[in-house]
Amino acid sequence: MTAQSVCDSLLEARTAVVIDVLRATSTMATALKNGCDAIIAVTSAEQALQVASTIGRDKCVLGGERGGLMIPGFALGNSPLEYTQQKVSQKTLIMTTTNGTLAINNSRAAKRVYLASLLNAAAVSDRLLCERDDLLLVCSGTEGRLSLEDVYCAGLLVSRIVSKIDAQDVTLADSARMCEMVYCAYAGNSVSALASAQHGKKLMQLGFSEDVRYCASTDLLRVVPQLLRERIVKSNAC
Amino acid sequence: MTAQSVCDSLLEARTAVVIDVLRATSTMATALKNGCDAIIAVTSAEQALQVASTIGRDKCVLGGERGGLMIPGFALGNSPLEYTQQKVSQKTLIMTTTNGTLAINNSRAAKRVYLASLLNAAAVSDRLLCERDDLLLVCSGTEGRLSLEDVYCAGLLVSRIVSKIDAQDVTLADSARMCEMVYCAYAGNSVSALASAQHGKKLMQLGFSEDVRYCASTDLLRVVPQLLRERIVKSNAC
Repeated sequence: MTAQSVCDSLLEARTAVVIDVLRATSTMATALKNGCDAIIAVTSAEQALQVASTIGRDKCVLGGERGGLMIPGFALGNSPLEYTQQKVSQKTLIMTTTNGTLAINNSRAAKRVYLASLLNAAAVSDRLLCERDDLLLVCSGTEGRLSLEDVYCAGLLVSRIVSKIDAQDVTLADSARMCEMVYCAYAGNSVSALASAQHGKKLMQLGFSEDVRYCASTDLLRVVPQLLRERIVKSNAC
Repeated sequence: MTAQSVCDSLLEARTAVVIDVLRATSTMATALKNGCDAIIAVTSAEQALQVASTIGRDKCVLGGERGGLMIPGFALGNSPLEYTQQKVSQKTLIMTTTNGTLAINNSRAAKRVYLASLLNAAAVSDRLLCERDDLLLVCSGTEGRLSLEDVYCAGLLVSRIVSKIDAQDVTLADSARMCEMVYCAYAGNSVSALASAQHGKKLMQLGFSEDVRYCASTDLLRVVPQLLRERIVKSNAC
């Protein structure tokens, strides 16, 4: 389901997995992998500047996008390739993006909130299999509409999870099964899936082809970002 | 997209095709085929009774469901097989269902509103091909969540339409392409699609297996229900 339609009653007893493959959750996984202390997801540029001044500007780095492009006054855009060790190590990253940070904030009522992308799909699915909670996969989408790349990633997670659980122990909602069908339609070709998605095409037109290829790199990172209170941090092992 | 997320700005320049395979739009197509003059879709049982008293009870028949079951005081439920010529011919049908009539009412801002089901998929896709408008396929879903059977039907319509238009003349949203993938995953086996959907299973448990089989009968009816002002009527040829 899209971020718009997440409601608190669905979240309370579940683990929410927020997915924004292009590019927020891919970027956040990369930042944490590269030594970023924590990420604070905010919904506006103004809020980002406010949080930065509270924490202290020297301890922070500001990142994010509007319309796929960098926000004036911010150090970093939403390209995961910018989030190098040199830029983010031992910093608090304050981030705002059009869809991803909104979906994260809309999922706060869940029992647990993890962030998934293709980059960390195996790490996240291993964690979910370890905990065996009821799940809600939240596809961030683009301006309230479903994005193929998020549905594809949700389908990959569903596929991984059901392959390791006895059929009688798992109940899939129609939407979860449809995500799996979309994933299967690409026969594991993540580059093809992302390149055929509307948002993937738009990013390639804007000059971000390298980002699209990187975000398609399935299982590259063994990091599980988790929202704990106001901060997204690397989660400890299950 | 689900009925919940339809907004007027998306609708205004488009033809909306409302889909509720199990069972509102299947039932409405059947009623019109069987000689029903017009259908008035209302959102509550109270409103249905009010409209009936305005029109005159002898000219009307009340139909619909809550939780898949008949509404007390109504003549008909939501089983398309009940809507025989004997019951509905030359009558105005006043109908309220949990999801379908809501989706119809939420789509009123569109340039045109048609109702589709598997039963009349060919008739509807022929009409859409004749008119060549921008389209919004509205999957009614179940209580705000996507239903497999509606997505499957949307995918059938997409598949039929794109097969008859030059590739450069059609732009598909990610969601339309994903509907097509779900449709293709069943290789045209509509009975299997409906029987594997959550709502299909629920209806079979409630004793409506015959309904599920009937609603899977693709291209059975050459009728195109259209919402014109407050009434759903058989549309004239393009």
